[in-house]
Amino acid sequence: MQNETIERLIEQFRTLPGVGYKSAQRYAYSIIEGNKARAENFANAIIEAKNRIAFCKICGNFTDREICPICEKRNRKIICVVKEPKDVISMEKVKDYNGVYHVLFGTISPLENKGPDDIRIRELLERIKEDNVEEVIMATNPDVEGDATAMYIARLLKPLEVKVTRLAQGVAMGSDLEYADEVTLSRALEERRLMK
Amino acid sequence: MQNETIERLIEQFRTLPGVGYKSAQRYAYSIIEGNKARAENFANAIIEAKNRIAFCKICGNFTDREICPICEKRNRKIICVVKEPKDVISMEKVKDYNGVYHVLFGTISPLENKGPDDIRIRELLERIKEDNVEEVIMATNPDVEGDATAMYIARLLKPLEVKVTRLAQGVAMGSDLEYADEVTLSRALEERRLMK
Repeated sequence: MQNETIERLIEQFRTLPGVGYKSAQRYAYSIIEGNKARAENFANAIIEAKNRIAFCKICGNFTDREICPICEKRNRKIICVVKEPKDVISMEKVKDYNGVYHVLFGTISPLENKGPDDIRIRELLERIKEDNVEEVIMATNPDVEGDATAMYIARLLKPLEVKVTRLAQGVAMGSDLEYADEVTLSRALEERRLMK
Repeated sequence: MQNETIERLIEQFRTLPGVGYKSAQRYAYSIIEGNKARAENFANAIIEAKNRIAFCKICGNFTDREICPICEKRNRKIICVVKEPKDVISMEKVKDYNGVYHVLFGTISPLENKGPDDIRIRELLERIKEDNVEEVIMATNPDVEGDATAMYIARLLKPLEVKVTRLAQGVAMGSDLEYADEVTLSRALEERRLMK
């Protein structure tokens, strides 16, 4: 008995990551119950974002210019390698990082049939050579695929004699040991620091 | 450093019920990473739903006609009273219900400053008189506000001599007693049935 036009809107909301039928239905109903201006603003924001935003030619992050403001203004000798554009936002919370980024758009993942050629590794190599990069910080996620990808790239970079580092792994600030999983704890123990 | 156009799309997604900043950001990124046709379809579906869908003049449910197919075809002598349009969809899963609906668009809620005049109770009274309704099934949610609203309407309908019923409350089918809350259990005990 659900109306076709509503069903079509629900279908669209379901294409968003992690949105199931119930949530999509709530979203659709909220559009219909809202006023007309809101629906128009929403639709415009979608079209505008899609039309205006593209990928930075250098780092791959989202931008409305050819080269993003980060690549334009900051120190290109240090590259922080991340999996996705949203990771750039996370890293940017660290105010004193002044280097640039490189978005891989994925990690090496045999399960998803993704090999080294399916993510932006070649582009990273080119940047390192061109810009005489001094340090590459591997900031892929601290999970199996993120670790494997970081390791793969680190090995690949060995002949280039660039410094390759990895974000430290351990227990999170403000967290409780009781709730830390054993892999995190064992990593934290392994990489323990001498207190001065 | 987040781009303004992206920020505007994130803001739009945040207006959806229950969507926080992180989810809104994921949704926005998925639009930007998707292709152009998808963004256009999405925007169109929003505009179309808003333009085409309105409220049924009789029951208040969503429809693209003046009077919805349910009100048009089914037995108007039985009205099932629900809080929101989405509850109609839920009730419609019960295949053998052949009556019509009445959407209140809310419940009486002192906390939200919503009184009897703020929901569609007057319209319900008019329908009952006009259509010589035989039974009103109160299907508002089994919570404090839903119960209070059902009670209020039941009292209001007493002089009209129409049969007023309420959905049975008790433990859910397929659920586990261990996880049932005590209010539900006490209600289930109170309304226990004689086994035949």
